[in-house]
Amino acid sequence: MSLFTHDDGGEVLLASPPLIRYSALLGNTEATAILDRLDAELDWQRPSLRLYGREHPIPRQQVWMGDVGYRYSGRRFAPDPWHPCVLAIRDAVQRRLADSGVGTRFNSVLLNRYADGRDRMGWHSDDEPELGDSPLIAAVSLGNDRPLRFRWKDRHAPAFNVDQPHDSLLLMGAGVQARLEHSLPSRQRQGLRISLTFRWITPLATD
Amino acid sequence: MSLFTHDDGGEVLLASPPLIRYSALLGNTEATAILDRLDAELDWQRPSLRLYGREHPIPRQQVWMGDVGYRYSGRRFAPDPWHPCVLAIRDAVQRRLADSGVGTRFNSVLLNRYADGRDRMGWHSDDEPELGDSPLIAAVSLGNDRPLRFRWKDRHAPAFNVDQPHDSLLLMGAGVQARLEHSLPSRQRQGLRISLTFRWITPLATD
Repeated sequence: MSLFTHDDGGEVLLASPPLIRYSALLGNTEATAILDRLDAELDWQRPSLRLYGREHPIPRQQVWMGDVGYRYSGRRFAPDPWHPCVLAIRDAVQRRLADSGVGTRFNSVLLNRYADGRDRMGWHSDDEPELGDSPLIAAVSLGNDRPLRFRWKDRHAPAFNVDQPHDSLLLMGAGVQARLEHSLPSRQRQGLRISLTFRWITPLATD
Repeated sequence: MSLFTHDDGGEVLLASPPLIRYSALLGNTEATAILDRLDAELDWQRPSLRLYGREHPIPRQQVWMGDVGYRYSGRRFAPDPWHPCVLAIRDAVQRRLADSGVGTRFNSVLLNRYADGRDRMGWHSDDEPELGDSPLIAAVSLGNDRPLRFRWKDRHAPAFNVDQPHDSLLLMGAGVQARLEHSLPSRQRQGLRISLTFRWITPLATD
């Protein structure tokens, strides 16, 4: 699904709100090398919710990284420090977006590790207040191509899938979080996938 | 803090978005009797988040009640069945709101139990997609008067407190969740408080 392709290689999947996919962000060899390093070197966590006496571990692993603390279920946590490979990806993302006229910077990234096709993420929007009114989120995919599924909150149009090949970048622009939810459904397809979703978090007043 | 008082006793704390407080919802004697019964008879839960090898129990207890399942950290849970006292409160809320021109119904309620002044709730908005674009939320307070603190997401005006006396109802109208966050800070003041926040949850498509 693509409306048209820009000269810089960005495919406009939705014009309003903007959903744009870029391919070959790092080059295949470097992307694969970084996938292996992140898999081996990060301190992957699996948060777990206990409710009605049962543990409900999330069906994937995560690392928060960057300059700014984040909230999880109303709690504040400190991020992990930047890994050099993640900084390299962030710079590549910022350069690619600048080339296509989007001048932006990111101070935080949530990394998700999907060990195989059973790992997944449920329906949600990235709409925490500390992301601001119209967050711009850049999602880099490494490894197994798993489609991201989108649905409109007002259900005015059908849900749709977006393929996320190895070494691709999906830009979710202003309004995507306000008007759509997304999820990563489980799939038969096996193989490791790591995603990096870069965002700008405004440090909140302590009040 | 009050802009003006309606004939029906509703105090308009904010006009836009509407934040309106009503007193003497049930009558003091009945409200106190219901507080005691809810405290004793409900299956109070304390969900807990495990992250970085540590448990982070939420600093209060909860029960979800009503006709429709709900989501918690991306998981679906079944609600508890209606307790007769909660149904009686729901009917009183719907009558009071109808008397002031707000025709609405509620199919779900989140009850929170604050055992003492240390129990609290962090900053959040009630803005899950299944609540719709402009949710109307009715919060009934029983027991210890604990102020609810509001802050604007865009920080254009200072944060402010709203007192919540025993047997009062706070109506958060269209736009309150979109434009403000609220929290229940800890306080020296001791004593049990139970809140009931009624809402309408749209059963979501399974897609």
